[in-house]
Amino acid sequence: MKAHADRFLVPTSGKRTYEVTGQIQRIVRDSAVKTGQATIFVRHTSASLIIMENADPSARTDLHGFFDRLVPENAPWFVHTCEGPDDMPSHIRMVLTGCSLTVPILDGDLALGTWQGIFLFEHRKAPHTREIAVSVIGQ
Amino acid sequence: MKAHADRFLVPTSGKRTYEVTGQIQRIVRDSAVKTGQATIFVRHTSASLIIMENADPSARTDLHGFFDRLVPENAPWFVHTCEGPDDMPSHIRMVLTGCSLTVPILDGDLALGTWQGIFLFEHRKAPHTREIAVSVIGQ
Amino acid sequence: MKAHADRFLVPTSGKRTYEVTGQIQRIVRDSAVKTGQATIFVRHTSASLIIMENADPSARTDLHGFFDRLVPENAPWFVHTCEGPDDMPSHIRMVLTGCSLTVPILDGDLALGTWQGIFLFEHRKAPHTREIAVSVIGQ
Repeated sequence: MKAHADRFLVPTSGKRTYEVTGQIQRIVRDSAVKTGQATIFVRHTSASLIIMENADPSARTDLHGFFDRLVPENAPWFVHTCEGPDDMPSHIRMVLTGCSLTVPILDGDLALGTWQGIFLFEHRKAPHTREIAVSVIGQ
Repeated sequence: MKAHADRFLVPTSGKRTYEVTGQIQRIVRDSAVKTGQATIFVRHTSASLIIMENADPSARTDLHGFFDRLVPENAPWFVHTCEGPDDMPSHIRMVLTGCSLTVPILDGDLALGTWQGIFLFEHRKAPHTREIAVSVIGQ
Repeated sequence: MKAHADRFLVPTSGKRTYEVTGQIQRIVRDSAVKTGQATIFVRHTSASLIIMENADPSARTDLHGFFDRLVPENAPWFVHTCEGPDDMPSHIRMVLTGCSLTVPILDGDLALGTWQGIFLFEHRKAPHTREIAVSVIGQ
């Protein structure tokens, strides 16, 4: 049994999803863990981590559209407005989608289904550099 | 310390929740882990895993009704429509509710509260067979 | 490698978020785990665990307001109404935000970002005592 930790950075350029499956698979292989689990964690309050279909990009287009409609900018009752119109929605979108994912490891690889990819979901318009921490535990 | 892995299948017959607590408790007992944690993961992009009240089925009826209203089929702005009207909503519902759960293990059993059950949340109308991977780590 | 478990109680007095970061950091330090992960789990179906900005309380005010609007009390189609108008919304809010969080441990502490705090999100109006279970695994 061992515990392995690593981190990586993802530059973002606006509100949308960015696939990070490959970076996490590399960390899992580096760990040499065959049976166990990986926890992926984004260290910010205005970006999320999600698992989403990675085959047809149009599915992610509609996902982005849904969240833009569900959490509108400029809600008249917002009081936390000092950091711009996309700031408060970014925190709400992060809470709805989560900043942590745990995925089993089977036979030395993430137990993802055929169409599952891991994505950073950026909720701010301005460019950011996001840090993702990964913890792998197993044998 | 050990890492134990297992999988099981759940046949579904339409959009609703299906309890899987018993199957996961059996895997935890098989692992003989007394202190640790279990990660439960559904390997699909149109079904979720949730923890929900398991006492009164009417609570789940309203949960199903809420998600049918929150993520309508046939939104006029959807572009990912080729797999039917329940396809794009299924991905959005999965992102909102999640495909991974991690539960502590105390005294050899899942640390669920009195009313907490683990449910597969199926988001497609047509029958499916869903695969759930479980990873147990502890001592 | 070791697995460490602990629990603590949080008294609540109405629908809002309550920071519990300090209690969890103490459990992680008590475990003496330097590299690994902590799973935090609330053992109830009407309260959640979230990570949220902990700098400006106004951000949490708007988060509370968003969920009050997203999941209204007294929806005319609710059938699970016997435990009061805030009961069914509490279960839906819990499913949307989750009752489990897993956070990597790096250098003996939770790998939280600068502005990330861990909060119990209480969804019932009446006072409650909530139990949180914490599982720490690592070396």
